[in-house]
Amino acid sequence: MSNLIELLNRDHPKEKNTSITDTIREIFKGYSFCNNGDMITTTLYEKIADQIIYQIEQGVLKPGERMLSIRQARLKYRVSISTILQAYLLLENKGVIESHPRSGYYICSQAKALLAEPRLSSPLTVSTEVDVSQLVFEVLSAIKRPGIVPLGSPFPSPELFPHQQLNKYIYAMGRRVTPWRAVGDLPPGNEELRRQIARRYLQKGYLLSPADIVITLGATEALNLCLQAVTKPGDTIAIESPVFYAVLHAIERLGLKALEIPTHPREGIDLTVLASVLKNQRIAACIIMPNFQNPLGSLMPEQNKQALVKLLAGYSIPLIEDDVYQELYFGEVPPRSAKFYDRKGLVLHCSSFSKTLAPGYRIGWAIPGRFQNRVEQLKFMNTLSLPPLPQMAVAEYLTHEAYDRHLRKLRRLFSLQLQQMLQMINEFFPWGTKLTRPEGGYVLWIELPEQINALKLYQLALQHNISIAPGPIFSAQRGYQNCIRLNYGHSWTADYIQAIKTLGRLATRLS
Amino acid sequence: MSNLIELLNRDHPKEKNTSITDTIREIFKGYSFCNNGDMITTTLYEKIADQIIYQIEQGVLKPGERMLSIRQARLKYRVSISTILQAYLLLENKGVIESHPRSGYYICSQAKALLAEPRLSSPLTVSTEVDVSQLVFEVLSAIKRPGIVPLGSPFPSPELFPHQQLNKYIYAMGRRVTPWRAVGDLPPGNEELRRQIARRYLQKGYLLSPADIVITLGATEALNLCLQAVTKPGDTIAIESPVFYAVLHAIERLGLKALEIPTHPREGIDLTVLASVLKNQRIAACIIMPNFQNPLGSLMPEQNKQALVKLLAGYSIPLIEDDVYQELYFGEVPPRSAKFYDRKGLVLHCSSFSKTLAPGYRIGWAIPGRFQNRVEQLKFMNTLSLPPLPQMAVAEYLTHEAYDRHLRKLRRLFSLQLQQMLQMINEFFPWGTKLTRPEGGYVLWIELPEQINALKLYQLALQHNISIAPGPIFSAQRGYQNCIRLNYGHSWTADYIQAIKTLGRLATRLS
Repeated sequence: MSNLIELLNRDHPKEKNTSITDTIREIFKGYSFCNNGDMITTTLYEKIADQIIYQIEQGVLKPGERMLSIRQARLKYRVSISTILQAYLLLENKGVIESHPRSGYYICSQAKALLAEPRLSSPLTVSTEVDVSQLVFEVLSAIKRPGIVPLGSPFPSPELFPHQQLNKYIYAMGRRVTPWRAVGDLPPGNEELRRQIARRYLQKGYLLSPADIVITLGATEALNLCLQAVTKPGDTIAIESPVFYAVLHAIERLGLKALEIPTHPREGIDLTVLASVLKNQRIAACIIMPNFQNPLGSLMPEQNKQALVKLLAGYSIPLIEDDVYQELYFGEVPPRSAKFYDRKGLVLHCSSFSKTLAPGYRIGWAIPGRFQNRVEQLKFMNTLSLPPLPQMAVAEYLTHEAYDRHLRKLRRLFSLQLQQMLQMINEFFPWGTKLTRPEGGYVLWIELPEQINALKLYQLALQHNISIAPGPIFSAQRGYQNCIRLNYGHSWTADYIQAIKTLGRLATRLS
Repeated sequence: MSNLIELLNRDHPKEKNTSITDTIREIFKGYSFCNNGDMITTTLYEKIADQIIYQIEQGVLKPGERMLSIRQARLKYRVSISTILQAYLLLENKGVIESHPRSGYYICSQAKALLAEPRLSSPLTVSTEVDVSQLVFEVLSAIKRPGIVPLGSPFPSPELFPHQQLNKYIYAMGRRVTPWRAVGDLPPGNEELRRQIARRYLQKGYLLSPADIVITLGATEALNLCLQAVTKPGDTIAIESPVFYAVLHAIERLGLKALEIPTHPREGIDLTVLASVLKNQRIAACIIMPNFQNPLGSLMPEQNKQALVKLLAGYSIPLIEDDVYQELYFGEVPPRSAKFYDRKGLVLHCSSFSKTLAPGYRIGWAIPGRFQNRVEQLKFMNTLSLPPLPQMAVAEYLTHEAYDRHLRKLRRLFSLQLQQMLQMINEFFPWGTKLTRPEGGYVLWIELPEQINALKLYQLALQHNISIAPGPIFSAQRGYQNCIRLNYGHSWTADYIQAIKTLGRLATRLS
């Protein structure tokens, strides 16, 4: 920040009669929008930042080289000074450039190596029987160790959520409702909660009613039920690669086969490859995370989501989307779910409050479209019903509290912590490391130099009381041997900073 | 009661120097033990009552006939007067005999018809693919209708449980624990809760530790996970007949086949038939409810449980037991679980607090023996974890409150309500009706005259705002077309009394 204010003073003290405060405000407005990406439109300053990154990647600009001054850049790109400032701030936050006091901006010394994003994945597109649960189970168990730094955790910091407010509602509802109400809301689940959830979708322009929603034990159960509703054992399911292991679990548990489709760290599942797969073999369903995919963090462009829904509908193939991170966007406009583009009821939408409001409440839901009845039945058969009080408490919270304000806070925080994490990795990880630039959520995908074995790193890190999520748990083929997923959804304490340093050191030692 | 005191005065005013109060106390002591059955030993007065019932069933004693006086009976059976009194009280409570003022005891006019218990079931012992979920789902949905009398409900009255106490603990734990504790206890679940559950088993002589327990979303999930842990699609599972529909659901959902084994309303699954089945075909697992089976209410004699465990162990076949009613025994000695007799870790024990303490908390557990790891993994894959606060609240309740006193109250109440229900059915149901005499739990199985179709009765009853559970939902073969299950676990209000009268009238109309 201070560098930028200095720069503002030095480079264009009074241009356009804009006060510094105004400019900073504008920059920060810009900043909070800066990861909007391909979603709806790319802003001008992002395009400029992208051009600069491209030049660095191509070797046109070199690490250590001085950047054009704001004034020079303004003339070169023919844009306003504030646009250049936004572009430079974005690049600074991405760890691409750094300011040297009284001397201007320079390309970071490790910029070229670190800038690269992982490319489109290239899994074998043959269907595979799945068996990753033992490994995942070990990794997840490690998170429970006392004193561990949970960089491998799939959960954000539990400290970020309004536990006490929710707790008060649980107590109040427990006192207020009759015992009859307090006993098992049978599927589809608590009506008031379904009404509140439906209201949020309606506000965003989705056409649905509370009756379309089935409450589940987290999105995990929703995913399991939806997948079972549209498949039978032996079927092949098209999935992203790398993929969230819960998807692999669901596939393993139901005796299905996984077909991994290449997935781009910015654009999500590759539609060209998927289209050619669909032409040549029978796929029973496709599962995606359209928004801030776990582990890549990729955000599918809206036109891709729409195209995917249309492509699958052409074959009458159900699309299951796990959309638990949708609310955690850093950009200006909330991304849409594939469900938004669903015209035939073929999209089974899964989500939860576990990542956004009430991690300990385990409240998820499915919006299964034309498979509603079957999912409701399966819910009933799988676990009967959920405890009603947590459902009631969340419904009350949504009715009376400022959930959207809480979400804004969460987004700002994760966005900031991402920048901090990127800079730390920039500084401490070995040459040749690649990493994604998520535009939402709280996980980051790192491709380490090829010779580094993620499972070895995982073991080493555990010895230092650091948990990480090794790449092979995100693939039925046990691919991504040199990749890891890190969580930046935790408070930036000294422990965390030390853990990332240590991790970088361990990775360097292995490389 | 008053009849009996009168009788005591008339028939043996001062015998043995026993005061009337003492005798009544003894009787009532006897009464609370009277349903002990075959469990450990049969008491003398029960044997006498059984002999009398047998004589009525065989037509030796006829409805309307006068019973021997207490004195005559004492001489005939060569027992003490109090033993005869206990036997007569038992028979009176069972609705077999009735007192006529100043004239003695008479066999009830409908005794013969109503006394009969259903015989051993005779399902086709061929394996069947299962598809009963739609029907069950409809039946269970009906319970949710406002104003309905839920005689078909699988739940006891929610008014019988300490909601407010538990609620206070939820609130207290929510305030006390750090956010970190409040977030997802991963499988096997909350440690303190597992410790409290283990403590109860240890007190009863079971050899197990908290680490042997996996917390689940009700016994329903426990059952599903255990079954999946020991089977693969296409396998055949030996089950009771009639059987709790959740078992059929689990079998259906996992693509397994059900083989229904004849089951006796007193003794449970028929071991002779099962043994011969095991000799001739491959069975992947056996599922039973050893204590107060739903829907029959049957209690397996201890030696049968032991024999069953041994029989299956001989073939290394896992035994899954759903034991949610174990704590609801009416007899003197708590029945044991099959798990008690397990030496090889082949018994997967499932239970919950849903029927005994906290119906709305949905806390169940599995003790899967040698399949512990697999069940823990499957739990993780199926629904990840449970909300921690309800688990903590129950653990606190078990630590600080008098759970056993609550259970004693519950047992007394259900036992009393069973007697009331038996008398009502006695009075209002058509000639030829047979019914079970459960020695615990809160459901009753009624075999109506053959021409009565239970599904028709179910529909008719619904029109009168009464829900019942029709027999066919308890069979993969859609058998038990003339049977229904009724719930006596609800307060004995005017609505309930009227509902049973109406039901009897409807059944009579159909017969």
